[in-house]
Amino acid sequence: MKDITAIIPNLLDQIRTRRPVVHAITNWVTGGDVANALQALGARPVLAVSSEEAAEITAQADALLLNLGTPDPDRIEAMLRSGRRANELGKPVVFDPVGAGASIFREEACRRILAELRIMVIRGNRAEIGFLAGRGGQLRGIDAVAGPEDMAEAVQVLSRQTGAVIVASGEKDLLAYGDIFLTWGNGHPLMTRVTGTGCMLSAVIAAFTAAGEDPLTAAATGLTCFKLAGRVAGRHANGPGTFKAGLLDRLYTLTPEDLRGSLELES
Amino acid sequence: MKDITAIIPNLLDQIRTRRPVVHAITNWVTGGDVANALQALGARPVLAVSSEEAAEITAQADALLLNLGTPDPDRIEAMLRSGRRANELGKPVVFDPVGAGASIFREEACRRILAELRIMVIRGNRAEIGFLAGRGGQLRGIDAVAGPEDMAEAVQVLSRQTGAVIVASGEKDLLAYGDIFLTWGNGHPLMTRVTGTGCMLSAVIAAFTAAGEDPLTAAATGLTCFKLAGRVAGRHANGPGTFKAGLLDRLYTLTPEDLRGSLELES
Amino acid sequence: MKDITAIIPNLLDQIRTRRPVVHAITNWVTGGDVANALQALGARPVLAVSSEEAAEITAQADALLLNLGTPDPDRIEAMLRSGRRANELGKPVVFDPVGAGASIFREEACRRILAELRIMVIRGNRAEIGFLAGRGGQLRGIDAVAGPEDMAEAVQVLSRQTGAVIVASGEKDLLAYGDIFLTWGNGHPLMTRVTGTGCMLSAVIAAFTAAGEDPLTAAATGLTCFKLAGRVAGRHANGPGTFKAGLLDRLYTLTPEDLRGSLELES
Repeated sequence: MKDITAIIPNLLDQIRTRRPVVHAITNWVTGGDVANALQALGARPVLAVSSEEAAEITAQADALLLNLGTPDPDRIEAMLRSGRRANELGKPVVFDPVGAGASIFREEACRRILAELRIMVIRGNRAEIGFLAGRGGQLRGIDAVAGPEDMAEAVQVLSRQTGAVIVASGEKDLLAYGDIFLTWGNGHPLMTRVTGTGCMLSAVIAAFTAAGEDPLTAAATGLTCFKLAGRVAGRHANGPGTFKAGLLDRLYTLTPEDLRGSLELES
Repeated sequence: MKDITAIIPNLLDQIRTRRPVVHAITNWVTGGDVANALQALGARPVLAVSSEEAAEITAQADALLLNLGTPDPDRIEAMLRSGRRANELGKPVVFDPVGAGASIFREEACRRILAELRIMVIRGNRAEIGFLAGRGGQLRGIDAVAGPEDMAEAVQVLSRQTGAVIVASGEKDLLAYGDIFLTWGNGHPLMTRVTGTGCMLSAVIAAFTAAGEDPLTAAATGLTCFKLAGRVAGRHANGPGTFKAGLLDRLYTLTPEDLRGSLELES
Repeated sequence: MKDITAIIPNLLDQIRTRRPVVHAITNWVTGGDVANALQALGARPVLAVSSEEAAEITAQADALLLNLGTPDPDRIEAMLRSGRRANELGKPVVFDPVGAGASIFREEACRRILAELRIMVIRGNRAEIGFLAGRGGQLRGIDAVAGPEDMAEAVQVLSRQTGAVIVASGEKDLLAYGDIFLTWGNGHPLMTRVTGTGCMLSAVIAAFTAAGEDPLTAAATGLTCFKLAGRVAGRHANGPGTFKAGLLDRLYTLTPEDLRGSLELES
């Protein structure tokens, strides 16, 4: 793990210097939050979702984020077109399977996305990841109230099935990539009382996939930055309203030094 | 009224313990605000709007919110499908007729929703409620600049026509349910300078309809909680930006004790 | 320029008294920000985007804003229908060509909007304005990373081609209208790290076009108010999250006296 902890602070600097473009085909509930998180971090968002133009926008971006919240037939078509274009051009694709398993429509969309596209990172909550891994889990609305019995096994199975880095968010975050398995603790409870924190985390990870390091390093860096920003924001918040403003502030002011002082991966 | 004022604080506790799922088929302008208000309060939002999946999502939710802002043909179809499913399953339905009367398209959508669905609570501004009651009113954009001549009569007429609890928001909030007529005063003026406060109030009421009390108690509890949160937030705000963050903070920190100290229904 | 600097403070008062309705056919990423900016300033937003009702909503509004972010075929159709209605009724139309040049679909939409509608003000970033003027520029995502070689020439060419007031935003803002050419300096750097500030500025300008002064005065007033609010908000912000809340607060608390003390047009 020594390598990653040394690289993470440098990747943050790279994002701010290169300012990668992240094309986010995302939901309209938290689209503004996703765009603001990317901009606060130093990336450049573009949220084109119509199948009329999606692939052309992807071709000009550095990474593609597919977020399954508020799906409709045209948005799924746009995801598939953009995903294929990203795959052809060797651009990283991050998938956030919001509400996977909540409807047949989302189930079919997940099936096609995983079958037709090469995904670099999948980030979801415990129930969504459990569902994709075929290991169960329970959603209430879009919140996971239960994951699979053995969450660690589920993320590892899904990583082997897809070849992707898998991140399962929850009180503890789990990451699996091939034989590598990591966990992050110390999230802030307000994180779960603000809509869009999961979507923002996926977007932050997508920004780091554009930095040219390996998928594991990109996902670990995104998770480390986002959790640290959330933890500091949580200490100064009076509730979910001030927390979200503070989270964006912290993504903007976060320094490589902050990261060096706080790395706490458990493997 | 003694009964309600005793029950209101308990209902707030119930929401936080049970965390009901509210399926909101709502507009994309304030969808994030609606979701955040529900989460701050302690409920779980899900905002699926495509007719491909809406009814299936409703079947897993505890209450359904239909909000007429930014309507299009597919969203209206989703509202009707979800509403029918909610009715079949005995789940409460709350209707927020945003911009009712502003276009023929919205007029026709209102007509179908009221004719085809059984609604538990309708919450709108004075002009929207006046329009549904056939008593007139004047919108400018989506703001009511005038209600019917006799607003109290209009809410009572509409309640008798529909069987629903009617809440008309304004400087004073009016509630009618059959023969019962209540008013709430003391809103905060910033409430009208932030987009989405009406939508958030309707969502908060929807969360309380899932708590299993009668429709009147649910609506009265939502209104009481929301107004109190708004009043406290208003005292600490510098303008509409800090007001909205504060409103979410207060929905999160609101206690049953706060409610006991502030009940001020006028009947 | 004497005339404008005397009129600007009065126009702010007029907005707060008359509360014009701005119909914004805008994108779903920053739609909430656009609505909140209009309400904070004192205008009334309505964001109907379906072609089923758009023209009917425009007929009741005082100004129309067309924003090209997140376009799809029906939204472009709604823009054209509303634009034609606004032109027939003599209502001002403001155009924000978000991402112009980023896709063939947006290029074609721009071509139709400029060919079929009479636009009062066009506001975009340097690359978008450069593209519309046929003078080049480079977008990364929806950010301008380069404008035309001679930006001043481009805004003047586009004004002559379209008859519209042209505003090109950037570190310095440029405005051209026929032979008149003005610049504004002193923006705040956080303005570029918050999603939607460009969209909000266009909306604020649209509100002032409804105040009945000439196009130049309307655009200059909107720009002056927005930049001043942004500058003051920037002084008190800890990052982009608190900046956005502060920006809305300042649009609400801005006074004609503040404007009198800060006018700094360079001609």
